[in-house]
Amino acid sequence: MDAFAAVSLRDHPLLKACHREAVPYTPIWLMRQAGRYMPEYRALRERVGFLSLCTNPELAAEVTVTAVRRLGVDAAIIFADILLPLLPMGVGLRYEDGPAIERPIRSAADLERLAPVDPAASLHFVADAIRIVRSELPDRPVIGFAGAPFTLASYLIEGGASRDYRHTKSLMYREPAAWDRLMTMLARITADYLAMQAAAGAEVVQLFDSWVGALSPADYRRFVLPHSRASLASCAGHVPAIHFGTGTAGLLEAMRDAGGEVIGLDWRVDLSEAWSRLGPGVAVQGNLDPIVVMLAGRDEIRRQVRVILDRAGGRPGHIFNLGHGILPQTPVDNVIALVDMVHEMSRR
Amino acid sequence: MDAFAAVSLRDHPLLKACHREAVPYTPIWLMRQAGRYMPEYRALRERVGFLSLCTNPELAAEVTVTAVRRLGVDAAIIFADILLPLLPMGVGLRYEDGPAIERPIRSAADLERLAPVDPAASLHFVADAIRIVRSELPDRPVIGFAGAPFTLASYLIEGGASRDYRHTKSLMYREPAAWDRLMTMLARITADYLAMQAAAGAEVVQLFDSWVGALSPADYRRFVLPHSRASLASCAGHVPAIHFGTGTAGLLEAMRDAGGEVIGLDWRVDLSEAWSRLGPGVAVQGNLDPIVVMLAGRDEIRRQVRVILDRAGGRPGHIFNLGHGILPQTPVDNVIALVDMVHEMSRR
Repeated sequence: MDAFAAVSLRDHPLLKACHREAVPYTPIWLMRQAGRYMPEYRALRERVGFLSLCTNPELAAEVTVTAVRRLGVDAAIIFADILLPLLPMGVGLRYEDGPAIERPIRSAADLERLAPVDPAASLHFVADAIRIVRSELPDRPVIGFAGAPFTLASYLIEGGASRDYRHTKSLMYREPAAWDRLMTMLARITADYLAMQAAAGAEVVQLFDSWVGALSPADYRRFVLPHSRASLASCAGHVPAIHFGTGTAGLLEAMRDAGGEVIGLDWRVDLSEAWSRLGPGVAVQGNLDPIVVMLAGRDEIRRQVRVILDRAGGRPGHIFNLGHGILPQTPVDNVIALVDMVHEMSRR
Repeated sequence: MDAFAAVSLRDHPLLKACHREAVPYTPIWLMRQAGRYMPEYRALRERVGFLSLCTNPELAAEVTVTAVRRLGVDAAIIFADILLPLLPMGVGLRYEDGPAIERPIRSAADLERLAPVDPAASLHFVADAIRIVRSELPDRPVIGFAGAPFTLASYLIEGGASRDYRHTKSLMYREPAAWDRLMTMLARITADYLAMQAAAGAEVVQLFDSWVGALSPADYRRFVLPHSRASLASCAGHVPAIHFGTGTAGLLEAMRDAGGEVIGLDWRVDLSEAWSRLGPGVAVQGNLDPIVVMLAGRDEIRRQVRVILDRAGGRPGHIFNLGHGILPQTPVDNVIALVDMVHEMSRR
């Protein structure tokens, strides 16, 4: 990254919003903006498997950049997957319909067989992809990201998606020492991984604690918060962090206490009420229901954008996003229209 | 119900808690307290199908009463299912692994084929069961219940359980007039159904809006609130209503505005913070994670009960409950221990 790009990006609306500075319009990017809903992506995936795509820096960068150019969003999020750090652990992570783990971790004894992970050695392809995107898109911030310890642990323990996280909560409640050991290990990996991405040129990072909304606030503070805090510590003071989860309307204050310059909001909380609860010391990101962009008509999409911009009230520190990732059946034209609407309707 | 029972029940801790009056201990009952986790229930179900059980007042009453006697809880909730009002609609409701609807409603045209429902005619067996329980358990309040319009609509439209409620939201956003017609019809049925149960002797009713947590607060207020309010109107001033949902940490104020003397809390919100947001004009019910009772040890269960009682802070108007129904794999002994703990630890 040359000095000129660094200077100009510091004034980019996305970065200014992270720091709660005034911006000429509300910046927008979208979780899973490079993904299956996009024909260019599906065409590439006909030729290349998901893991091959993630681990090939040129292809990952291509997918990342294509989405930004097609949509006109204000940031590139590096194409990768939150579970990549589990690959070198030797648990048999595979991507079929969704991620699946052949040998899940269910006990203290299972922890012994987890191979140590050094992101600089085993996840360097993500840093390489960031460097390529950085040079191809000099005028847009690049967002690096990682899964948070709870969400990583829940996949490691359940072996895949879960409805009630019973194995995860079983380890938490019945073997708290093993839980703590696992979370400490995951937090260290996540911290190193995020720091590597920032060093490679990511101007912002996002910590995805996608499934943490399954927990009570008391359990979050006791079993998760210290580890999320440790994950974010490596970037603190270097690049701003967005701390995101879903179903977290009852966890927002606790997530803020764990860290992050920006708190991600899904759609199940009112943006203005959430921001009041969080206080003026953080920015917020969100919070449109992804299904609105998938299936509502343009008038309804516009109406929902208006509600969110009104609730943000023009206060500095709002990054527009969906409350979770773009759904695969979403029409690309709706996404482009959404980006344009947010830019137009928020222009000051 | 004779006059004496009426007088004595008015002073029952559950009813006093509904009215935010001081009680000698925190009353507790549990959603799905009569259900598959209980050997007596499973034995009965070997002989009788689920629908036969629901529609037979003697058997439904037996299951209801057995659970109360076995657990020592402070209230009987009538054994029934929230989807029973859909039976006479002619949509092909069947109970297999879960409820399934053969001919779901997906459009304005589909609405035309819904047969009208008069609960007094087609759901009288629930009233009969309440009368039996009322006479067999003269010292415990009986709770009647109904599904709320949104949750009923979501089953009618999706045809079963759903992850993202895409068909429901599609009707809502794309055919708002049809949505309103369906919700108005469901609200009238629900209001009549709850009134019938109160007239049969239910001292309290609960409105289950189990899946409403899928909505944004703005959508809740626009598409759901008026219909939930209409559902609760028939009981207002007659019997107290508990207004319950899950994943509703961001919807609590809106649900309070729709009605109910008691607002149900799942486990994903701090009880004290939720009550502060709701204000002193309502009681609260909850809010233990059901999985804690299923799989944690006694010390952990006790610890979690302590947190909830501490957060309630002895203020009048807390009914202890799980944040959702008892899970089928829950040991009965854990449930009995939980009831005893709440009574002992809250005694004033």
